[in-house]
Amino acid sequence: VDAAALAGAAARNGQLTKPPGALGRLEDLAIWAGGWQGTDKPHCDRPQVIVFAGNHGVVAQGVSAFPAEVTVQMVGNFHAGGAAINQLSKAFGASMSVHALELDRPTADFTRGAAMDEAEVVAALATGWNAVDAGADLVVVGEMGIGNTTPAAALAAALFGGGGASWVGRGTGVDDAGLARKARVVDAGLALHAAVLGDALEVMRCLGGRELAAMAGAIARARALRIPVILDGFICTASAAVLEKTVAGALDHCVAGHLSAEGAHGKLLSALGKEPLLNLGLRLGEGSGAALAIGVLKGAIACHSGMATFAEAGVSGA
Amino acid sequence: VDAAALAGAAARNGQLTKPPGALGRLEDLAIWAGGWQGTDKPHCDRPQVIVFAGNHGVVAQGVSAFPAEVTVQMVGNFHAGGAAINQLSKAFGASMSVHALELDRPTADFTRGAAMDEAEVVAALATGWNAVDAGADLVVVGEMGIGNTTPAAALAAALFGGGGASWVGRGTGVDDAGLARKARVVDAGLALHAAVLGDALEVMRCLGGRELAAMAGAIARARALRIPVILDGFICTASAAVLEKTVAGALDHCVAGHLSAEGAHGKLLSALGKEPLLNLGLRLGEGSGAALAIGVLKGAIACHSGMATFAEAGVSGA
Repeated sequence: VDAAALAGAAARNGQLTKPPGALGRLEDLAIWAGGWQGTDKPHCDRPQVIVFAGNHGVVAQGVSAFPAEVTVQMVGNFHAGGAAINQLSKAFGASMSVHALELDRPTADFTRGAAMDEAEVVAALATGWNAVDAGADLVVVGEMGIGNTTPAAALAAALFGGGGASWVGRGTGVDDAGLARKARVVDAGLALHAAVLGDALEVMRCLGGRELAAMAGAIARARALRIPVILDGFICTASAAVLEKTVAGALDHCVAGHLSAEGAHGKLLSALGKEPLLNLGLRLGEGSGAALAIGVLKGAIACHSGMATFAEAGVSGA
Repeated sequence: VDAAALAGAAARNGQLTKPPGALGRLEDLAIWAGGWQGTDKPHCDRPQVIVFAGNHGVVAQGVSAFPAEVTVQMVGNFHAGGAAINQLSKAFGASMSVHALELDRPTADFTRGAAMDEAEVVAALATGWNAVDAGADLVVVGEMGIGNTTPAAALAAALFGGGGASWVGRGTGVDDAGLARKARVVDAGLALHAAVLGDALEVMRCLGGRELAAMAGAIARARALRIPVILDGFICTASAAVLEKTVAGALDHCVAGHLSAEGAHGKLLSALGKEPLLNLGLRLGEGSGAALAIGVLKGAIACHSGMATFAEAGVSGA
């Protein structure tokens, strides 16, 4: 982060025509964005939404309410402009790109072996890395992948401890039996891959998925480019956590867009020290919660960079 | 509300390409907006932000951290485009109008008499009523008025009971002594006007203010026109509460945009049965929290009205 820009943005904030602190968290957001963008007047004119899609061998264990063919069908829906993330991207002036990662070749069932081999996880990370537009001033990453709350729960359990039951949720809508099955599947994965649980990138390879690795790759690239990132829900946050566990502070350029209704998201955000901007009960994925939070960031930045100072406006201070 | 449109919007929501309920509160918001707009595909293309400004005799009691001249200075800032509400209105594509209500003639100090006479409160209500654009598809009302958290606290106390201390807050930033003074001032107002506390419109006249009455007038007009309204913070909500106490259900076309950091706002929203959309520590007024929530409503409506159905997209259901 650019310390001079951070200080400049904080100084500017103190001169704007409002009582000190009256814009609450919007003030912190704008200063933080300025620090990463390297300016005392941050901007949000070129937000980029990137959606990654993947399929999961672990679906064979009955962990999802929807059939696996929905992944490719929803990718078609993204390309046709019919999904929630298309509408949200458009509403907030974001470009949107979709990357389908070998949908006809699901990852391996992680209860029987590693989800990906080295070449596969590297290819997925690189797809994410290369998907970021270097000219973007804000990045949102989202995902689509039937069954992917299960690998996300496996990542969270591997990285932060606790059994499967403490990290699985209802995803797109499994019943109690499905929830119990997900917990058993995660526990089986943790047992099979016990030897790698101390190595976050190996955890991604053995228990993750292609779209999860791609999100991590994109978040890392945004960091290299000093572009602020809004994290989405449980799956995005679990993928991002792999970076934080690899290098502490790796997510300092990320803000949590929302608190998902997916059970363990709040616990995962707390473990990362992230306070969500929104809490509206979303649990769709696709980057939808983060895309909705673009509006909050746009508002924060518009106030910070567009408001008059007390001196400019001739307004008396307190 | 249009029951057929409400049912149509709910039916449409059930067919969209997402797991049932996965957009959380966005789904309820879109259906609600459809019901008021009388369509199964609500829109948010012409949001209107209206800011009312007034001055308050009670400022003589030392209830604000800022001098009274700031009201007219900030109106100048609104006209020049330099305030937070200007940036937020622009960011969310809203028109913005400003109505300064006799700033050189403050209301009377309510600890010594009625804040307004009948002609004055009627004129203020009418200003609000006439300020609403009949072609708007969403209305936000905001205010500017140095000292106006004190009349707002007086309204809340008069309408919902409890002494001044349970409703006053720090406003733009008074210290502990200022806070205690505000409570005593509210209590003095409640004592002086004890005879009218059962009549909400008389409460507005005796304890309120011009911009508070104007906000109530605008919210009532939006109801007559079936335009959804986003409520702002403590002062806006207290003004709106006068309508609810006059006719139960009068605020069914209103959603709470945010939870203000002004102390008693949460209690006031609870008393009205309203759950805020945002909670970001704002306490600026001007309609800023509600304007920020336009983004949430835009996102909800964009998803609801723009998404493909399962049949349209050829996506398999659960």
